[in-house]
Amino acid sequence: MPLTRLAIIGPGLLGGSIALAMCERRPEVAISVWARRAEALKAIRQLVPAAFTSSDLREVVAGADLVVLCVPIGAMPDLASEMEPFLKPGALVTDVGSVKVPVVRALPPLLPRAQFVGSHPMAGSDQSGLSAARADLFQDAVCIVTVDADSKPEPQREACAFWRGLGCQVRTLTAAEHDEIVAFVSHLPHLAAAALVNMVVEQMPEALGYCGSGFRDSTRVAAGPAAMWTEIALANRGAIARAAEAMVEKLREVARLLDANDPDSMTRFLSAAQAERERLRK
Amino acid sequence: MPLTRLAIIGPGLLGGSIALAMCERRPEVAISVWARRAEALKAIRQLVPAAFTSSDLREVVAGADLVVLCVPIGAMPDLASEMEPFLKPGALVTDVGSVKVPVVRALPPLLPRAQFVGSHPMAGSDQSGLSAARADLFQDAVCIVTVDADSKPEPQREACAFWRGLGCQVRTLTAAEHDEIVAFVSHLPHLAAAALVNMVVEQMPEALGYCGSGFRDSTRVAAGPAAMWTEIALANRGAIARAAEAMVEKLREVARLLDANDPDSMTRFLSAAQAERERLRK
Repeated sequence: MPLTRLAIIGPGLLGGSIALAMCERRPEVAISVWARRAEALKAIRQLVPAAFTSSDLREVVAGADLVVLCVPIGAMPDLASEMEPFLKPGALVTDVGSVKVPVVRALPPLLPRAQFVGSHPMAGSDQSGLSAARADLFQDAVCIVTVDADSKPEPQREACAFWRGLGCQVRTLTAAEHDEIVAFVSHLPHLAAAALVNMVVEQMPEALGYCGSGFRDSTRVAAGPAAMWTEIALANRGAIARAAEAMVEKLREVARLLDANDPDSMTRFLSAAQAERERLRK
Repeated sequence: MPLTRLAIIGPGLLGGSIALAMCERRPEVAISVWARRAEALKAIRQLVPAAFTSSDLREVVAGADLVVLCVPIGAMPDLASEMEPFLKPGALVTDVGSVKVPVVRALPPLLPRAQFVGSHPMAGSDQSGLSAARADLFQDAVCIVTVDADSKPEPQREACAFWRGLGCQVRTLTAAEHDEIVAFVSHLPHLAAAALVNMVVEQMPEALGYCGSGFRDSTRVAAGPAAMWTEIALANRGAIARAAEAMVEKLREVARLLDANDPDSMTRFLSAAQAERERLRK
């Protein structure tokens, strides 16, 4: 099914960036954007004048081949139920939620006339809100598209093509694999960055006046929106708790290395991390 | 004493950046650079053609008003002893070491004819080597200059003026205060970033293929040179061990918040970190 009409539900950082990227890359696709609040609608109209905007879900999803839910995961079920009667039969619905097991479990039964495929474009970091949206947000970002036992190939393929068209490097994982992986490389790192900030504030608040670029890099994600991250953390709390426990063990290893005062073993520890980190992109 | 001749000992990231910044900001000051290896001398000559370069310490420090030790802290005592007979009497000697108590304890007795003041420009992060040097490295970077009971005002003032002239925001602290503070905002964050990388490699190596900008930011410092960071970590191991213990406690608090599954208390934790992190610069 060729994409001729795209509905974006929620114009925050991700929804706004999808709208901007589509205008730039596929101007032939009609875009409609839903937001609840009048000021959010006004902001998206200013940013993306070509988009149709409305707070009426029916108007926004009507005729859409693809609907992207760009709202917090807790808000998705109600919105899905509300839009279902107005969806074009067979429409593809996807989302941008950072946790996938609860989403792919809850949404398909609420969307019987649509095809639901879970997505997670890993872009954004510490930024949030429409004001941070940009057309190139997805360029080279990893986007995970979930696949499960009952996934159908066609909507799966369409979802992958959509994200690839925005510049993403698309990978497929099961929802459970996704949640385990992001617990280790996104959710726990976020909580650890917040823990580092809170620890310094508590133990040595005057030290915050002496931060170099290292501390700012290490804690940047902690500036992300607390409410959104609370929802993510609790939705994936089992996997994150396992990652947190492993991190505690690694910090205990660091303490033992400091205590041993042996340059060779400390260098081995830091060299291993240096080599792995250099392998990642900047 | 006006600065007319500056000697830089060791042309790595910091030494090279000092040379570049001085050429740009104070071209009237004569610069001489010492390096042990011929290829390092060749590289600095290419980068800073105006500098006098030599592997002979005597030639490099002769007549210098200010000598900046830009070598690993473990190499400083031998170089200080070696240069002492050739120093201009009353010359100011400073350094860029990331740990200050061992440096301000070891160096002054080795430099009886000079005035030693400890410095720590907090710039560089994950980069190292002359190839990463740039004239604006120090712009807006915090530089800590140490002051102790027996510090003399004049060399102290000159050291502060030198760093300020390179663009630094200069602060003074005792060496002990410095080492406590950087344990919390630089050394422990570095070891924690390395611990995070090593933990993921051990527990879920496949997750490294799914890193977003958040993980890359959080672990960027871990790409720093392992040998240099080993030296720093062990030279300040007492204070870093205290910070590591406090970090373990904070991660245990995170685990309890996950276990409690209470959105309000998790939001309080993340909001506190978000507000503090937003107060820091990007």
